[in-house]
Amino acid sequence: MRFTSPTSSDGVTEQLFTLSFTFGEIPGVLWTPDGASGPRPLILMGHGGGQHKKAPGIAARAARLVAECGFAVAAVDAPAHGDRPRTEEHLRVIGELRTRMRTGGDVAPVLAELHTLVAGQSVPEWRAVLDALQDLGHVGAGPVGYWGMSLGCGLGVPFVAAEPRVRAAVLGLNGAETSAEAAARITVPVEFLVQWDDESVPRAASLALFDLFASAEKTLHANPGRHGEIPAFELDSTLRFFTRHLG
Amino acid sequence: MRFTSPTSSDGVTEQLFTLSFTFGEIPGVLWTPDGASGPRPLILMGHGGGQHKKAPGIAARAARLVAECGFAVAAVDAPAHGDRPRTEEHLRVIGELRTRMRTGGDVAPVLAELHTLVAGQSVPEWRAVLDALQDLGHVGAGPVGYWGMSLGCGLGVPFVAAEPRVRAAVLGLNGAETSAEAAARITVPVEFLVQWDDESVPRAASLALFDLFASAEKTLHANPGRHGEIPAFELDSTLRFFTRHLG
Repeated sequence: MRFTSPTSSDGVTEQLFTLSFTFGEIPGVLWTPDGASGPRPLILMGHGGGQHKKAPGIAARAARLVAECGFAVAAVDAPAHGDRPRTEEHLRVIGELRTRMRTGGDVAPVLAELHTLVAGQSVPEWRAVLDALQDLGHVGAGPVGYWGMSLGCGLGVPFVAAEPRVRAAVLGLNGAETSAEAAARITVPVEFLVQWDDESVPRAASLALFDLFASAEKTLHANPGRHGEIPAFELDSTLRFFTRHLG
Repeated sequence: MRFTSPTSSDGVTEQLFTLSFTFGEIPGVLWTPDGASGPRPLILMGHGGGQHKKAPGIAARAARLVAECGFAVAAVDAPAHGDRPRTEEHLRVIGELRTRMRTGGDVAPVLAELHTLVAGQSVPEWRAVLDALQDLGHVGAGPVGYWGMSLGCGLGVPFVAAEPRVRAAVLGLNGAETSAEAAARITVPVEFLVQWDDESVPRAASLALFDLFASAEKTLHANPGRHGEIPAFELDSTLRFFTRHLG
């Protein structure tokens, strides 16, 4: 794991990193409190489709998790996203998705195809990133949480199911199509976000995914609005949820 | 409005009261911070079916709203509940409900019948109680919230729809059968609780009621478990919700 020089803003230190792995270089970012030393809870954040590791919605949430909770937060570019290459197959599925979004077609099955295509690669990548991050003195082997919406949920469900170090997850904006089998293996506490008027994810598919989690504690938060319109107060809830389970 | 002598426990003053109204005497209870003076937010709490104004779930929530938020909280015995008389028709519907609960019959239509029967009386009663409470110096004409689950939701939906002084409501454990028309007239922020494995309220009916609220801000919290098993962390959320909207 190679780091660039850290930068700091409002008490949060940002370090870009690159990890060499089976499928090539994984570009990532680690945020920690300024001057942090010793182990702390770590939140892994999975960005949405078409986004990247430093998308505004990721960076803003990470800043609050670090500044207000003292956690470490890491994000990586998902396969075929951000600074990473796209294969012919990635390009074909992404092209089909864009066409359907433009023409008002049914995007759900294409989203599911994309998530399945990417997840086979991203689950082992996240585990390798987690191994490397836990070797750092200012992260350490503390409890781990996962946050991911939309693509970040589609890739997160199989990752959380596979990785026993993850002790709590905030997931949402995704249906059961890609990850039903993995969802039924998740037993850690889950906070699950649904946008009631989501134009990309059918409401019934979202409720079906929530239904599948085997967690004794799982809580569904549904709010009016479209896919990208999660209300600001849900971030307050996310901070409290991770503090309750990892703090 | 006639009060008995106040008692105090853990910083919370309790005053039982009786208000004479069209349908007879309304027995109620008011909780305020010890030594309170001047106006403050007021939360009206509607108890569940078969319960009363000082049921444990009401008293425990009221104590935290008063002690932690400085609010005033009031509850009354709903018609045919607690210290109030039951008519022949009340007794018939309650009997039918108990029979179906015992034999595993379909309780939803009988619950709806009971809620409709009682709501015609309870809505004007709540308005009279609110008038009287707002005349008190240590309550005053501050912002008003309503909290009610199950029967307290069935009676609360038409009350919140009718009463412009109510500025935010926590509702839940009830379906759309009794109150669809009133629900569509509610525009204040609503936090709506669903028990995912509710044995009395069909899941689809709960989701349908949430769907009907015309509020720009409405948020649904669903948790695993049966009708009476709302998790403790939802009370924390209730306190924050009322503080955000009334505080």
